[in-house]
Amino acid sequence: MTKIGMKVSGGVSSLSEISFIVEYLAPLASSAAAFGLKDDAALLRNLPAAGLVITSDAVVAGVHFFDEDAPADVAYKALAVNVSDLAAKAAKPIAYTMTLALPGSPSRDWAAGLAAGLRRAQDAFGIDLIGGDTVSARGAWWISITAFGEASLAGLLPRTGAKAGDRFYVTGTLGDSALGLKLRLGSGGFEEALSQSDREYLLSRYHYPEPRLGMTAALSSCASAAMDISDGLALDLSRLCTASGVGAGISVSSIPTSAAAGKALASDANLMETILSGGDDYEILAAVPSAKTGIFEEMAEAAGLAITQIGEAVTGQPLVRFLDARGQIMPLRLKGFEHF
Amino acid sequence: MTKIGMKVSGGVSSLSEISFIVEYLAPLASSAAAFGLKDDAALLRNLPAAGLVITSDAVVAGVHFFDEDAPADVAYKALAVNVSDLAAKAAKPIAYTMTLALPGSPSRDWAAGLAAGLRRAQDAFGIDLIGGDTVSARGAWWISITAFGEASLAGLLPRTGAKAGDRFYVTGTLGDSALGLKLRLGSGGFEEALSQSDREYLLSRYHYPEPRLGMTAALSSCASAAMDISDGLALDLSRLCTASGVGAGISVSSIPTSAAAGKALASDANLMETILSGGDDYEILAAVPSAKTGIFEEMAEAAGLAITQIGEAVTGQPLVRFLDARGQIMPLRLKGFEHF
Repeated sequence: MTKIGMKVSGGVSSLSEISFIVEYLAPLASSAAAFGLKDDAALLRNLPAAGLVITSDAVVAGVHFFDEDAPADVAYKALAVNVSDLAAKAAKPIAYTMTLALPGSPSRDWAAGLAAGLRRAQDAFGIDLIGGDTVSARGAWWISITAFGEASLAGLLPRTGAKAGDRFYVTGTLGDSALGLKLRLGSGGFEEALSQSDREYLLSRYHYPEPRLGMTAALSSCASAAMDISDGLALDLSRLCTASGVGAGISVSSIPTSAAAGKALASDANLMETILSGGDDYEILAAVPSAKTGIFEEMAEAAGLAITQIGEAVTGQPLVRFLDARGQIMPLRLKGFEHF
Repeated sequence: MTKIGMKVSGGVSSLSEISFIVEYLAPLASSAAAFGLKDDAALLRNLPAAGLVITSDAVVAGVHFFDEDAPADVAYKALAVNVSDLAAKAAKPIAYTMTLALPGSPSRDWAAGLAAGLRRAQDAFGIDLIGGDTVSARGAWWISITAFGEASLAGLLPRTGAKAGDRFYVTGTLGDSALGLKLRLGSGGFEEALSQSDREYLLSRYHYPEPRLGMTAALSSCASAAMDISDGLALDLSRLCTASGVGAGISVSSIPTSAAAGKALASDANLMETILSGGDDYEILAAVPSAKTGIFEEMAEAAGLAITQIGEAVTGQPLVRFLDARGQIMPLRLKGFEHF
């Protein structure tokens, strides 16, 4: 589309749009569907009989990531969070489109960094760039991705299917990313309790989410409901419960935490609130009927993924109760994320 | 994804994100694929055997549209330009996802306007919202859309298929939108030559592109190459010629213009350059083998769409020549659009 007025010119070392696409993006688009990014659209053929799962997530500089973050890290995470949605829906990644908005022509270093981050994520998740758009941003740069996955035979694993009696599971450990973000913001107050490698671990969990693609078979075979945890367990669990019409009783002592998060917690027990509601986990929350918990745990173990049962779905109005070790309800100021 | 710090609060009359989605976006998403926008992903089933055509286009306030433009107009055009890409690829619209970034909570009036513009476009083009994302913008608001269409049996009608001897056609009239934009910018110098209704017509062409979906059958049956004209005939034709490895000889006197554009041209012949290179036409440029021009013209007429033969593909290096009435090469400063 025509720009209405603004003209942006790059400096000597900057790239034209066409060079950026040809030299840095086209090598990421080797699938036949992409036509080398030389056409106006992509064409996905041999579509999955069970259906195509489609999800979109965008990240904006200064909102979802820091202006000074490396483009490789931003690009990796932008793709990872989309793939995380596919994983939580038991879908196998196929392809993605990316719309990228930049306030001016990028330098070659910047472009190479972005491409390297996408390449790393593509190789890790088995997904290819097939198209998109490049536009002028006004101010902050941003990436908007739409990702496509092959649906499991059962269709879309929904948010809505949890029943009273189902057990809630999460993958991996929770809170690492939220603590990593606190370290970035310098607002933790727990840095002293951590070793250098602990800090690096938490920061790495913030920057490099690992979509739990290995859970696909276990989820599609056993789960009644699932979603990825992007805005914190407390809020996302309440969303799943609301959608399913169940309540939840969660045992806080069962929440899986990393060694690094454990040290932070030992220094300040109030950090449990950050762990439960901080966000950016990109672990999977799943509800599993009690009769299937055994096979679910076996399949997850066979896939090499750690999962933890954290509580149970109960009847009654959707209400999430976090219970401490004595069975007392833990007061939790739910810091939900409204996105604007 | 967690926001890294910025908090935006809406005023008394503003909407929460969830209310905005439930009250204004969900009614646009009645397809079963969308799950009422209540899940984390969409599921497209019954996928077309010939493949799914996928295209993405984004618009940014202050870059692609004016800050003061009505949200209904912006939303309509954002969807229309995506559907225009589908139309030019001979694909039938199926569904779209939309990522919307706003700097703060919208008012109900604003939200209703946006939804009305999308509704108008959806009804006009036969396409449904099935998912997307809502995020905080930093500064300018923007819309990023990915649209899905059913491929024609021949697959994706490419940019690359034009052969020497093919005839070039365009749909509709060219330059109206570029002249409408000049009126908006007050940079025309031709306002006096136009009636009020002429001006309204040109502005309407700028705001409300009409994807030429009626051309699908004619294009898939006859065309060797096609694309929509979004950045001006001169630049987009040169792109198609470069992709196809042909040159082009275009007769400027054959370029179809509206009555309003004709009056502007009569007042200032130099406006032909605006008409040829101004952009935002969203008409279709197609190359048609000479043996098929008869049936192509018949099929377009049967579809009720005006098309005009404007020249011919020639051998030689990709080079577009615009020839005036005396057969002289018209000098044209190609104002290509680099998007950043």
